Amino acid sequence: MKDKFYQYILQLQNQITSKLEEVDGVAKFREDIWERPEGGGGRTRVIENGNVIEKGGVNISAVHGKLPDSMQKLFNVGEADFFACGLSLVIHPKNPMAPTVHANWRYFEMYDTSTEFSTGSRKVINSWFGGGQDLTPYYLFEEDAIHFHQTCKTACDKHNLEFYPKYKKQCDNYFWNAHRNEARGLGGLFFDYCKATDDSSDSEQAKHMKMEDWYNFVTEVGNSFLEAYVPILEKRKNLPFTEAQRTWQEIRRGRYVEFNLVHDKGTLFGLKTNGRIESILMSLPPNVQWVYDHHPEVGSEEEKLIKVLKNPIDWV
Amino acid sequence: MKDKFYQYILQLQNQITSKLEEVDGVAKFREDIWERPEGGGGRTRVIENGNVIEKGGVNISAVHGKLPDSMQKLFNVGEADFFACGLSLVIHPKNPMAPTVHANWRYFEMYDTSTEFSTGSRKVINSWFGGGQDLTPYYLFEEDAIHFHQTCKTACDKHNLEFYPKYKKQCDNYFWNAHRNEARGLGGLFFDYCKATDDSSDSEQAKHMKMEDWYNFVTEVGNSFLEAYVPILEKRKNLPFTEAQRTWQEIRRGRYVEFNLVHDKGTLFGLKTNGRIESILMSLPPNVQWVYDHHPEVGSEEEKLIKVLKNPIDWV
Repeated sequence: MKDKFYQYILQLQNQITSKLEEVDGVAKFREDIWERPEGGGGRTRVIENGNVIEKGGVNISAVHGKLPDSMQKLFNVGEADFFACGLSLVIHPKNPMAPTVHANWRYFEMYDTSTEFSTGSRKVINSWFGGGQDLTPYYLFEEDAIHFHQTCKTACDKHNLEFYPKYKKQCDNYFWNAHRNEARGLGGLFFDYCKATDDSSDSEQAKHMKMEDWYNFVTEVGNSFLEAYVPILEKRKNLPFTEAQRTWQEIRRGRYVEFNLVHDKGTLFGLKTNGRIESILMSLPPNVQWVYDHHPEVGSEEEKLIKVLKNPIDWV
Repeated sequence: MKDKFYQYILQLQNQITSKLEEVDGVAKFREDIWERPEGGGGRTRVIENGNVIEKGGVNISAVHGKLPDSMQKLFNVGEADFFACGLSLVIHPKNPMAPTVHANWRYFEMYDTSTEFSTGSRKVINSWFGGGQDLTPYYLFEEDAIHFHQTCKTACDKHNLEFYPKYKKQCDNYFWNAHRNEARGLGGLFFDYCKATDDSSDSEQAKHMKMEDWYNFVTEVGNSFLEAYVPILEKRKNLPFTEAQRTWQEIRRGRYVEFNLVHDKGTLFGLKTNGRIESILMSLPPNVQWVYDHHPEVGSEEEKLIKVLKNPIDWV
């Protein structure tokens, strides 16, 4: 499964970066191959100062080795070995009318430590998929929110009718900027610990999911990404905007930074376990402002966005 | 003691904001008085878009009530009441040749819960002072670093010759941006849990310090702040700079954000215990950039700064 999923994210990275370069029309992704001293590495692709994309990263990594202490605590296990691979992306468009998008699809395996990793014959004691995709606009276009969520729902519904409502809600909960009492964005999907049936599953239907079924589900979502995002980007990338709207975008990007550095488990985990910093922090926006006690005008488009972020909506 | 120290920070806030307005010459501090629902409140003063200061805050607060669970854990105590007051300031100058500065002086009391706070006759079970001041330049002027540290040392030496080396080292350790493997800035002083003699003190001389002595020390440092910073600001505020130097300043400000949101205990504590968000986050710089994998040119002024941040220096 790990080789199959790794092959999948390799080709998905190619597919996504090709399409985004096409949409941008000018900038190209720069590629950095890196190695993790403790085992594994990654292929980071970053695009900056494009015609459409101000900054973005579409990164894959596959790492393995001894499970760090912090992860032993997180998973409530003792010493173990692990393998993890995934694709993470964040795209920050230049135009404030175009939304930022984030997506991630990942696979994790844990092994008992009684055999050597290099032999390839390790006993898998646990494995699961995780991931999701979510949209963070600076101005609210309801049709964009509906399109993004509808695409997520269509991908989910092919596998289990309970998935979309469940993972949509988990997304709203996870990307909650608690200290601001508002959502990071308009949500989408967030799922984790997707594994073969066990008794702790809270869904009758999900009990029938084998790892192969989860692979099919996760890759279905991965395959839906470009369809979910690119039509929105195309529609908004050339809209006119004012200096004040650009300022609003930069202030809102500040909230994105706050979420990623204060609350995002993945980012903090990476920073505190000696991950490749530049690959992790590619998610941070290019130009950001913090203005003291900023509030949008009553009745403005900016206020309309805030209202929706404070009370997440069911878009489909 | 709490009333005496509160009176001190009230007048110190006035003194510092007056002087900084004089140096800026154009902008004035805006004042926000706020109340904490659980007890106490603060007087926040923020300056923005000045001639010299791009953004800065000089805030005082005095809060009291039931010790939050998170603080019970931090201090390893059970239920208790507390009082805390302090002054916190961060100044981000516009000119990249002028350094950012941070300072904080604070006092904390804990009480047993068997009497009512309102009676004023609570039994103090523990109390201490904390604080410090530190400098974060974007370009290295060694004479500025020496002046700042010499002023810190002069203030310390009047009280105990061990204080400057000890608190200088603690400052370098505290403001360490671990995920970047570099200091936030050039350091200064950082001290905490300064209280009347007990057996756990590691210094023979500090054993003779009474709370009154600590008050005299902390206010000596507070009184040294303007002398430590203003001459530097005056000297650098009108130096010419290029667009590239401004970009470097904004990229380095990103590191300041990273430290404050990922590592700073005070900021995280405030964010996670329902503090006044806008007063806490006044510390974040006004305009910030994140550029993927940015490295200064070999032999450049920018690289000279980084080298010093990676290996903190004894300036005096």
